[in-house]
Amino acid sequence: MTNNTLLEQLNWRYATKKMDATKSVPQDKLDAIIEAVRMAPTSSGTQPFELIVVTNPEKLAEIRKAAGDQAQITDGSHLLVFAAWDNYTADRIDEVTDLNVEARGDLPMLNAYYDNLKNNYLPRDTEVNYAHAARQAYIALGVALVAAAEQQVDSTPMEGFDPSKVDEILGLSERGLRSVVLLPLGYRDPTGDWLLPMKKVRKSAETMVSYVD
Amino acid sequence: MTNNTLLEQLNWRYATKKMDATKSVPQDKLDAIIEAVRMAPTSSGTQPFELIVVTNPEKLAEIRKAAGDQAQITDGSHLLVFAAWDNYTADRIDEVTDLNVEARGDLPMLNAYYDNLKNNYLPRDTEVNYAHAARQAYIALGVALVAAAEQQVDSTPMEGFDPSKVDEILGLSERGLRSVVLLPLGYRDPTGDWLLPMKKVRKSAETMVSYVD
Repeated sequence: MTNNTLLEQLNWRYATKKMDATKSVPQDKLDAIIEAVRMAPTSSGTQPFELIVVTNPEKLAEIRKAAGDQAQITDGSHLLVFAAWDNYTADRIDEVTDLNVEARGDLPMLNAYYDNLKNNYLPRDTEVNYAHAARQAYIALGVALVAAAEQQVDSTPMEGFDPSKVDEILGLSERGLRSVVLLPLGYRDPTGDWLLPMKKVRKSAETMVSYVD
Repeated sequence: MTNNTLLEQLNWRYATKKMDATKSVPQDKLDAIIEAVRMAPTSSGTQPFELIVVTNPEKLAEIRKAAGDQAQITDGSHLLVFAAWDNYTADRIDEVTDLNVEARGDLPMLNAYYDNLKNNYLPRDTEVNYAHAARQAYIALGVALVAAAEQQVDSTPMEGFDPSKVDEILGLSERGLRSVVLLPLGYRDPTGDWLLPMKKVRKSAETMVSYVD
C-alpha cells in the first residue's frame, strides 16, 4: 500500500501516540522528509529556521523530560526539532541575498528587494521577528507532516515542551535559534496506540469554509 | 504531466507573480485544495481558523488595494483567506469537544482533555492565543501549497497586506476572526511572469540541517 494522493496521506497520518521503539526510519525516507523541509517555501525565501535531527539517546531522554515525558520522543527513531531564528539580522538577510545573487545573477532588483526587507525587519521588535520566523517554520512543519505520510513514516507534532529547556539541551541560544516545534518520526505500535482505532475528527466544510462570491 | 511526488510538487510550485486572468481554477481542483485545508492537522484538533474563499470582484479589488496592489489577487480566480480565531473561548473549545464526543463517544478522557485545554488557554493573553491559532493556520497553509501544486494550480502566499483592512472588507472581526495570510489561486502567465524563468533558490542541506547523534 502506498499513500499516493495528498488526501490519502492526510487521512493515513495521525498524531501517533505510541511508537514501536524497535523500528527505525530508514535513511532514504528520512532524507526525503528533510528534503521536503528544505524545499518548503518561506516568506521572501529567507528560510528563517534550522532543522535539528536528534538521534542521540541521552539528548532524546533529556528532551523527553522537558516535554511532559512524551514517549514518542524516545520511542521514535529520529526527532526533528524546528528551530527558528531568534531575530532577523543584517548578516542573515545578506546571506540570503548572496545565495539569490549566486543562483540568479547580480540583479539590481534582488539587492533592492533585500535592502527593503532589511529596512522593514531590522527596526522591528525581536519578538515580532521571532514570531514571523516561527510561522515560516510552521509552513515547513505542514510540509513535513505530508512528507512523512508520503513515506509512510509516522510522526507526532508536539508543541507541549519547555522551549527554553530544549534550547539549552541542544545549545540553540548560542546559535541564535529558538525551538518552535518538535516532530518525532518513527513507526506506530498498532497494538499499543489508543488513538489509532479512533475516528479522525475534523470540522465539516460548512463549519470551516465560507464563500464571498 | 502530473506532479506525482511531493518533491515534484515542491519543485513545480513557485510564488507566482503574474497570473493569467482569463483562466479559472475548476471546481473539482478548488474542492481538493479546500479539503486538504480541512484535513490539515492542528494543535489538539481545534482547527482554530476559518477559510474564506473570495471570488467577488469588488471585494477582490478592495483586498488588492489593501495588499500593496498585488495583481494576483484579482488575476487569480479564487482568493483563499486564512482567518484565525482572535482568541480561544470556552464556547469554541466546547464545540470541538462536542465534535469529538460525537465521533468517538462520550469518553471521560475526551472531556478531561478539553477541560484541561480550557484551563490552559482561557486565562492566557488574547494575543498569545491568537498567535497560537495563527500558527495552526500556517500548518494548513503549508498543506494548501502542496495541495495546489498537486492539482497543478498556481498559488501565491501573501503576508504583505493590511490585516485590519482585510478584516474590515470581509467583516471578520464580528465573527471573532483575524486575517492571517492570503493565497490567491489561479494559473501562471508564462510569458508575463518574471520569476518563472529564474532558478529556484534554497539553502543547502548543510546550511539548514544539523545532526545530534
